[in-house]
Amino acid sequence: MGKKYTSREEDYSKWYNELVGRADLAEHSDVKGCMVIKPHGYAIWEKMKENLDRMFKETGHSNAYFPLFIPKSYLSKEADHVEGFAKECAVVTHYRLKNSDDGKGVVVDPEAKLEEELIVRPTSETIIWNSYKNWIQSYRDLPILINQWANVVRWEMRTRIFLRTAEFLWQEGHTAHATEREAIEEAERMLEVYADFAERYMAMPVIKGIKSESERFAGALETYCIEAMMQDGKALQAGTSHFLGQNFAKAFDVKFADKEGGLEFVWATSWGVSTRLMGALIMTHSDDEGLVLPPALAPIQVVGVPIFKTAEELELISEKFKNLGAKLGEMGVSFKFDDDDNRRPGWKFAEYEAKGVPVRLAMGPRDLENGKIEVARRDLKTKEVVNFEGCESMIQTLLEEIQKNLFTRAKDFQESRTQTVDSYEEFKIKVEKDGGFFLAHWDGTKETEQKIKEETKATIRCIPLDGDRASGECMVTGKPSQQRVIFAKAY
Amino acid sequence: MGKKYTSREEDYSKWYNELVGRADLAEHSDVKGCMVIKPHGYAIWEKMKENLDRMFKETGHSNAYFPLFIPKSYLSKEADHVEGFAKECAVVTHYRLKNSDDGKGVVVDPEAKLEEELIVRPTSETIIWNSYKNWIQSYRDLPILINQWANVVRWEMRTRIFLRTAEFLWQEGHTAHATEREAIEEAERMLEVYADFAERYMAMPVIKGIKSESERFAGALETYCIEAMMQDGKALQAGTSHFLGQNFAKAFDVKFADKEGGLEFVWATSWGVSTRLMGALIMTHSDDEGLVLPPALAPIQVVGVPIFKTAEELELISEKFKNLGAKLGEMGVSFKFDDDDNRRPGWKFAEYEAKGVPVRLAMGPRDLENGKIEVARRDLKTKEVVNFEGCESMIQTLLEEIQKNLFTRAKDFQESRTQTVDSYEEFKIKVEKDGGFFLAHWDGTKETEQKIKEETKATIRCIPLDGDRASGECMVTGKPSQQRVIFAKAY
Repeated sequence: MGKKYTSREEDYSKWYNELVGRADLAEHSDVKGCMVIKPHGYAIWEKMKENLDRMFKETGHSNAYFPLFIPKSYLSKEADHVEGFAKECAVVTHYRLKNSDDGKGVVVDPEAKLEEELIVRPTSETIIWNSYKNWIQSYRDLPILINQWANVVRWEMRTRIFLRTAEFLWQEGHTAHATEREAIEEAERMLEVYADFAERYMAMPVIKGIKSESERFAGALETYCIEAMMQDGKALQAGTSHFLGQNFAKAFDVKFADKEGGLEFVWATSWGVSTRLMGALIMTHSDDEGLVLPPALAPIQVVGVPIFKTAEELELISEKFKNLGAKLGEMGVSFKFDDDDNRRPGWKFAEYEAKGVPVRLAMGPRDLENGKIEVARRDLKTKEVVNFEGCESMIQTLLEEIQKNLFTRAKDFQESRTQTVDSYEEFKIKVEKDGGFFLAHWDGTKETEQKIKEETKATIRCIPLDGDRASGECMVTGKPSQQRVIFAKAY
Repeated sequence: MGKKYTSREEDYSKWYNELVGRADLAEHSDVKGCMVIKPHGYAIWEKMKENLDRMFKETGHSNAYFPLFIPKSYLSKEADHVEGFAKECAVVTHYRLKNSDDGKGVVVDPEAKLEEELIVRPTSETIIWNSYKNWIQSYRDLPILINQWANVVRWEMRTRIFLRTAEFLWQEGHTAHATEREAIEEAERMLEVYADFAERYMAMPVIKGIKSESERFAGALETYCIEAMMQDGKALQAGTSHFLGQNFAKAFDVKFADKEGGLEFVWATSWGVSTRLMGALIMTHSDDEGLVLPPALAPIQVVGVPIFKTAEELELISEKFKNLGAKLGEMGVSFKFDDDDNRRPGWKFAEYEAKGVPVRLAMGPRDLENGKIEVARRDLKTKEVVNFEGCESMIQTLLEEIQKNLFTRAKDFQESRTQTVDSYEEFKIKVEKDGGFFLAHWDGTKETEQKIKEETKATIRCIPLDGDRASGECMVTGKPSQQRVIFAKAY
């Protein structure tokens, strides 16, 4: 390798950018703001998708697919929504190209101008509710529990791979219900699904909460969220679930006949997570040597590297690894045996370390002779030599241990970087100096929230649903506060 | 139900459109040419994806994701490609909207005009080869075997759900190789994967062949294809695999250092299938009562309907079905028990028939008493009453039988509608009167191909790879022909 990489301490942001390249996850494309997700990055996203998709189906949802394009006029049907979303969008104005006069290229055909411009979806509430209008007549048609896996586009000026890109991949759930209560329950259920996924699969502890009014999704009555803490102490919003009330039903005139024969507007939710989770995963666990992956999301959980001089040695070691691979496969552990002879073991070790493979095995002629194998774990960078016989169950246990350790380590970190403050002066100093999460009282007004944001760059990440609910006095104005909220600088 | 549907004999095209709605597969959206794929349709597409994806991975491919947008100038880099693709595209010209002066809506912000227009990908060769340029330096970087699942847009004026839509979903494989031979082998391997998928999962017999020059993909040296016959005798191109030679490597200047230190252009393939396969599936098997699904792609393979008057009856029957469902689940059979008491059994029977569920079970109080269950198969519309005890293995065997029967029936149909003709006069009459496939000699020229197309609307579907390779004389010009090719009218 030889190349010197930036450490987290030197420059966290640079470390992140280098890591994305070094672990071969993704890269910038020539199209401004759009990324290329490379096979290793995409394989991790596929593991995320696979588990989330199963969890959505287990909670009664089906997948469907709605158009990429939204007629411009739809965006202005819901007043708050257009304020929040209509602005930075990719706009399709024409539907044909033609050869340029010099014959060397193509130009937009001015005759092929669309009557109404189309917007590349930044989110799909409007196009979906326009369909639901035709699907819903009676209470018998409810609930509708649909999810969509799709690409969306929000024209961002300052982009960072996975965290903020013009095009990104996501899932968006859009549900329709007969009652307010049912819709709120749905929004809360999906928040739980996201939190469970984050903690069990990503090994990323999250705080569940609701957003303050000014941080709410455009068009929502309530936005539930999960917030995670990155290694630099900054917060990252990892998923949101919105209770939309009857706003979209009213905007698109979606009513249903209830059991008593009355006509009511339908209640709605929407909820989503995106490839942003890839950024969250990276910044929760990785270290100066590269990516660290929780086994539950690692495309390759275990890699085997043979160390050999002669072809005969390779053959004997290969046989051992192949037997082991078969056993691991039966146990549901994904294993790769890397016998590529263009690369040396040291190069491979660094490569798999950079790519975050949780467990690395190595076997040389002496190990072979002694019936041993070397087992290295990525999270702690420790290794030990164990008996080859029966090592598969030790490896399985180790994977479970790594999964747990990553969660515990991240949880401890989050707790150690969470402070309770009561004085705004203290808050201002500590936000700047320590970073992390701050539990503080707030008077519930937009004005105070705005003042804090302007003066410290910290925002209200959420009003936590769990934990201490004691009332107090706003750290800025001294006015009454119902409970502490979480402030942090955020991605 | 009550509604009278059009039969296939009355109007095949109308039957198709009605079926798509009746089986709840998809519908037109308000965005011209774009469809909404509804949950039942999407669940079938998911089964297709799941199996294809596994087959791609088994043949060494990984998934990745490339940008939705392509800079306009990229399209003109490969001369043939621009001819074939640049014309009917969605063109993004602006990246921002703003509130209109009357405050009632949004308008395109004229200040937010892109320097270079972006095209919504109609296919991704150009954007992908622009990335490969940076990924490939040496023979060690080859082969690259990547697939992408994505949406693409081709602005079509006349659209039909699944068969031709402006936006559709597909997969596109893009591979890079060190040698011509390896690239050709890859293109042929993927043709085999497609044919295997079509026949084993879709139960749809296909003819493997190569396209005539004028039907080739824009930029390819050879296009391999699978062609299927629909129930109306028309052909449907179900998948294509292209050997692209060095065309894209030359257009994007992608060279690699070979083992001897020389610098060579990289060899390429691309291959794809799309939601068009949904149309092919429908038109291969379905009947006047609705969709007929091969069990291998049916989201629900078996449905159970209770017939009851009292709550006690329902409880006893439910228990039987739940036990059976658990057993079927263990056997890998997907089962749905429909005890919705808003709908009567007759309504459910018609509903599941329309949706193509392969096996329907029914149990009433008398069956319960006698230890019996009614088993109905969708393909033949027959039913029989069997012993409940042990019926799970009978059901599993039945599913296999249905899968085979659908294939055999379609194969027999295809063979019965394939004719060998030697005279152009006879050909013209039969193409019009009989439809189906015609094996005929052709002199290999574009002119003859064009004449036939103009005079009969039949095109060369492919030059078959298997079967009779005897030479002969062109049915139109009498000039020498190397082998018979397949003519048909096509979707």
